[in-house]
Amino acid sequence: MTGTNRQFRLAARPVGPFDDSDFELVRTPVPVPGDGEFLVKVTHLSIDPAMRGWMNAGHVRPVDVGAVMRAITIGKVVHSRHSGFAEGDFVHGTFGVQEFALSDGAGVYKVHSEEGRSLAAYLGVLGMTGMTAYFGLLDVGRLAMGDVVLVSGAAGAVGSVAGQIARIKGAHVIGIAGGPEKAGMLVDRLGFSAAIDYKRDDFLDQLRDRTTRYVDVFFDNVGGDILDQGLTRLAHGGRVVISGAISQYDNSNAVVGPSNYLTLLYRSASMAGVAVPAFADRYPEAMAQMSDWLAAGQLTSIEDTVHGGIGTFPAMLRRLFTGKNTGKLVLELEPQA
Amino acid sequence: MTGTNRQFRLAARPVGPFDDSDFELVRTPVPVPGDGEFLVKVTHLSIDPAMRGWMNAGHVRPVDVGAVMRAITIGKVVHSRHSGFAEGDFVHGTFGVQEFALSDGAGVYKVHSEEGRSLAAYLGVLGMTGMTAYFGLLDVGRLAMGDVVLVSGAAGAVGSVAGQIARIKGAHVIGIAGGPEKAGMLVDRLGFSAAIDYKRDDFLDQLRDRTTRYVDVFFDNVGGDILDQGLTRLAHGGRVVISGAISQYDNSNAVVGPSNYLTLLYRSASMAGVAVPAFADRYPEAMAQMSDWLAAGQLTSIEDTVHGGIGTFPAMLRRLFTGKNTGKLVLELEPQA
Repeated sequence: MTGTNRQFRLAARPVGPFDDSDFELVRTPVPVPGDGEFLVKVTHLSIDPAMRGWMNAGHVRPVDVGAVMRAITIGKVVHSRHSGFAEGDFVHGTFGVQEFALSDGAGVYKVHSEEGRSLAAYLGVLGMTGMTAYFGLLDVGRLAMGDVVLVSGAAGAVGSVAGQIARIKGAHVIGIAGGPEKAGMLVDRLGFSAAIDYKRDDFLDQLRDRTTRYVDVFFDNVGGDILDQGLTRLAHGGRVVISGAISQYDNSNAVVGPSNYLTLLYRSASMAGVAVPAFADRYPEAMAQMSDWLAAGQLTSIEDTVHGGIGTFPAMLRRLFTGKNTGKLVLELEPQA
Repeated sequence: MTGTNRQFRLAARPVGPFDDSDFELVRTPVPVPGDGEFLVKVTHLSIDPAMRGWMNAGHVRPVDVGAVMRAITIGKVVHSRHSGFAEGDFVHGTFGVQEFALSDGAGVYKVHSEEGRSLAAYLGVLGMTGMTAYFGLLDVGRLAMGDVVLVSGAAGAVGSVAGQIARIKGAHVIGIAGGPEKAGMLVDRLGFSAAIDYKRDDFLDQLRDRTTRYVDVFFDNVGGDILDQGLTRLAHGGRVVISGAISQYDNSNAVVGPSNYLTLLYRSASMAGVAVPAFADRYPEAMAQMSDWLAAGQLTSIEDTVHGGIGTFPAMLRRLFTGKNTGKLVLELEPQA
């Protein structure tokens, strides 16, 4: 196989919102697998809020300037000299924002599309997104039957799954999302008990009215003012799960911390992060459970799959931070022009 | 018994640092106990950071404007019509900032000074102060043998006890305090492994140098910048115990939340408040353990007992917020003028 591989490399570390010029589109020859290697043609790129963090020097695992931008992906094996992977296999791996990647199989596993399960689902409900929701809610949040659960970013990739798991487990689930369409979807399509539209002027009234029983588990994907206001509605012994902070990742000033954190003191409450790799040995358990729920129609995978060339990557990433997408954002690569 | 009782009532709710005029000194007749009641002459007033919170309307249990200011106290029974309490008994109760109080015995228990144990110790090591340190460190913080423990406000009432318990339990203990005298006391008198003087310009360098092993339990009494900086030194799986926020209680603006709270996400860490009444059924266990440590000389009760009339109360409370006191601040009442 010969030809051109197009890849986005990190060109500069942005402060605040990123510019397209923080990435450089580079053309290289498609690499040739050596013994024990295989070549993957990337078919689906997971577009994640975490990407913005990876661009920062202060991140625990930053992408180096000049390196290929990190991305979790699905791809198809197109040439193999590895005994465990054959041409035609679809695989999940961190192959980066590029059209082709070499692999020796480390950290790579095979995936299969089936009835009711797209390949993109392996980046969403059955991927890091779903694992974050599952372990964040059940283990970090210690969800119990009958709990009141508040989810922010509830129409987003992780939030939409976390809220549904809570509903399946018998919780009273309130979701926070932006705009009437997203709020409506939470209740009508995903079975949330109630929704709050944070874009309305009466956000605080809605929050108070929907949480008169107070909140046992607050699953926060947003940070900033929404985290701060949610803290005021915590029940005694409440648990705040910090899953992300989409409002803060491209803050050009310091991150805004939660002023109301002393609620933790007054209400014997706690706040904990869900760093999902800590649960890696239990991914099979979670994937099996999520697959069952998908098959039974109890869990709906909200996928926002956009078809486009690799060149659309910066614009796709920007969609995440403008509140424009719903569910799991995936770039399905079209053949290169 | 007849005479005058002097009491401080809450006159106004301060915003920011309180003024003396936020309290009103009122003279009333000494009350006369009815059947099943007894009269207490207050001898020791516990001066606590929590008092500033009780003055705020937003507190979970605020003191009403016009009511006697709340205080945890020791007193002597001077007249009794209650079968369980006799004249001459010393008792612990929330009798308020006043010279005399009536009680029916609810929430009151008897205390005894002994060899090596002052009456004031029942407001410190053996009181709410000690209970907060004990349950905060061992239960909320889940201290384990060999942990690295960071304590802020380490020369204060709760911090000095928390750090010593950690040392007794085999932890490597680093204390943060203001000024060379307090920092020296932590190591020389209380057996901390190391101290950090936050008043020095090289605070951040000291913090980094003393925590090269990172911090498993961060017991925070201070909030603000010290909480924020301490968060950057958390180990994977670290626990932050929110015991108080002396830097924030009389903040005239909003409380400053911890900008670095996303460390909880990146390091699978958690932050939880210690609301000590949740452990009330285990106070006897903790008091017995603390008494044994005191008797064995393993635990030192740092008491800052000031003798004065009731009229000195506002000035005493102010001492807490200026960083001037060391250990447990107690106002031992002198006979009224």
